[in-house]
Amino acid sequence: MSRSKLLDSYEQTTQQLAGHGPRNVAVLKDAFESIDGKVSSDKYGQGSVIEDFQKQMADFLGKEDAVFFPSGTMAQQIALRIWCDEKNCKKVAYHPLSHLEIHEEDGLKKLHGIQSILLADKDRVIELEDVTSMSEEVACVLLELPQREIGGQLPSYETLEAISSYCREKDIKLHLDGARILECLPYYEKTIKELCQLFDSVYLSMYKGIGGIAGAILAGERDFIAQSKIWKKRHGGDLISLYPYILSAETYFAQRKNRMGDYYTQAKELALHFNACEGIFTIPEVPVTNMFHVHFNETPEKIAPILTQAQEIMNLGVSGYLRKEKQGCSFEISIGDQYQKIPQQKVKVFFEWLEEKLKTLR
Amino acid sequence: MSRSKLLDSYEQTTQQLAGHGPRNVAVLKDAFESIDGKVSSDKYGQGSVIEDFQKQMADFLGKEDAVFFPSGTMAQQIALRIWCDEKNCKKVAYHPLSHLEIHEEDGLKKLHGIQSILLADKDRVIELEDVTSMSEEVACVLLELPQREIGGQLPSYETLEAISSYCREKDIKLHLDGARILECLPYYEKTIKELCQLFDSVYLSMYKGIGGIAGAILAGERDFIAQSKIWKKRHGGDLISLYPYILSAETYFAQRKNRMGDYYTQAKELALHFNACEGIFTIPEVPVTNMFHVHFNETPEKIAPILTQAQEIMNLGVSGYLRKEKQGCSFEISIGDQYQKIPQQKVKVFFEWLEEKLKTLR
Repeated sequence: MSRSKLLDSYEQTTQQLAGHGPRNVAVLKDAFESIDGKVSSDKYGQGSVIEDFQKQMADFLGKEDAVFFPSGTMAQQIALRIWCDEKNCKKVAYHPLSHLEIHEEDGLKKLHGIQSILLADKDRVIELEDVTSMSEEVACVLLELPQREIGGQLPSYETLEAISSYCREKDIKLHLDGARILECLPYYEKTIKELCQLFDSVYLSMYKGIGGIAGAILAGERDFIAQSKIWKKRHGGDLISLYPYILSAETYFAQRKNRMGDYYTQAKELALHFNACEGIFTIPEVPVTNMFHVHFNETPEKIAPILTQAQEIMNLGVSGYLRKEKQGCSFEISIGDQYQKIPQQKVKVFFEWLEEKLKTLR
Repeated sequence: MSRSKLLDSYEQTTQQLAGHGPRNVAVLKDAFESIDGKVSSDKYGQGSVIEDFQKQMADFLGKEDAVFFPSGTMAQQIALRIWCDEKNCKKVAYHPLSHLEIHEEDGLKKLHGIQSILLADKDRVIELEDVTSMSEEVACVLLELPQREIGGQLPSYETLEAISSYCREKDIKLHLDGARILECLPYYEKTIKELCQLFDSVYLSMYKGIGGIAGAILAGERDFIAQSKIWKKRHGGDLISLYPYILSAETYFAQRKNRMGDYYTQAKELALHFNACEGIFTIPEVPVTNMFHVHFNETPEKIAPILTQAQEIMNLGVSGYLRKEKQGCSFEISIGDQYQKIPQQKVKVFFEWLEEKLKTLR
């Protein structure tokens, strides 16, 4: 069974465990339905459409200023470049599975000449000791909260405070890769401002948990943001018009920023279902955000037909792919608006069926 | 009289000499009105929305392959970087008023470490001799057609052919900054394919003459485009969704690609009107595209109130700004859909009125 059969069957389902729904043109049309056609475009970073939203996000995050970027890739490279230039040190430290290290074709190195120091082992989050035991001087430490590639794990809030204090003492800037930062708040039981004040610069994605079309916010002190706008132009990110992303981000941010607690509760509930099946475990075992990874002990070749069948006969989207692991395979779940639309009885029936199917493999 | 009064009065006009109309949300809504909400988003450069348009543009330009970029700034820096890496030479040559030199905060230098060799004087286009007399080795020559900052002037087609031949002979790549390349075709009386085959790589803007929301096409050989996609990711330009720009570009490209001859004819007609006024001249005197610059012998302080008054009493948008020149001031006109909507009688009355007003300054 090919992977694409799995993907095809997933895309045909209208009820899905994860996400906010299909990424299609309706996301744009819905967001713009109530926006007047006479609203003026932003123009190369100016105009009320972009300036008002930047102000709103700076206030929300508790930072002096903020800037809207077309992508997080661009926003984060630029943040690190500014901190490196300020300290005249071309080294930064982050997790081995940071987005910058594995998903950006080495842009940080190839465009900015910045070297990365990798902290911690791949399969765990960064702890205070990883930072204090660095042998090299760095301009900035980047923390990704949650650590997406290991199922959205989080260090304790005390660890964050300790790392923040240490970095301030040692004159190391602390940057937050907060692509999914709102999703961490229910676990930490902190406000976004409390969390952000531990960091010198903060990035937040507009399309991950929030479900906009694309775009990112970078926030920090006024001078830092002023510099980031110059780099945004250099990167080719200062588009004449970013309003398709900004106005949709504004809509979905308003809709979803307060739903993260529900997503978190539902993620814990769903993970319990998976962990109750023999041959399946989740990472983390108990989710700390809306996200976790589902691991099967069996190979993708054995699991794909089962999920495909479930998707075909039950109209329940579980996953469109399976990642081969050293042993078995896995996929990622991020809870969004879709999960709550599925009748609990249907979820129960699916897991009973799945458990029976997995038995046939043994 | 402040400049902003001029801008305010301009923005309140509903008939304007230049452009396609206001850059507002209606541009997006109109383009998406007939697009089904079920159409899937592109995803990190993949999916039929982006792939089909790239194929369409490659075919249109007569190149093997093409890629959609969020901005021309990004597309062009990347094109030059690829050519520099290929030749292991970090120098490129272009006009002193190239977009890369004056509008990109030195991104080419700061991100790519590429040095620019400036060809020709500021106030004229690049000629063959400027290229053949270069004393330094360069990886690439960039020609901007038309040369926007000097009113959209063009070298002769024979000059383009000669520069192209010379560059091929000397193993120098030739890149086309064709942000407004469609606007040159009526003057050259050439097809887009004939023009593009003189160049190794071609950039075309999706929002200038075409009037989309933002975005750019970079076209060339297959391997060049494959490399450009890696750099697009490095720059942070490989957004999860570019469809708001792609689908609107597709709409307005279809609407306007064949109107360039009309815009060109109308630009020549309008320039005649301006040149007939004492104290005004256009650069170039006879436009070679849809664009020209209007120069006044008098200062902006004297001209602004006159244009403001015209805009207020006649509802005819002339310009929202005046650029101070060594002597007098100027503004740019690019003819689009709006000019043809103005009754000829109204244009005539405006110029008669303008001529009278200018007399009062002498």
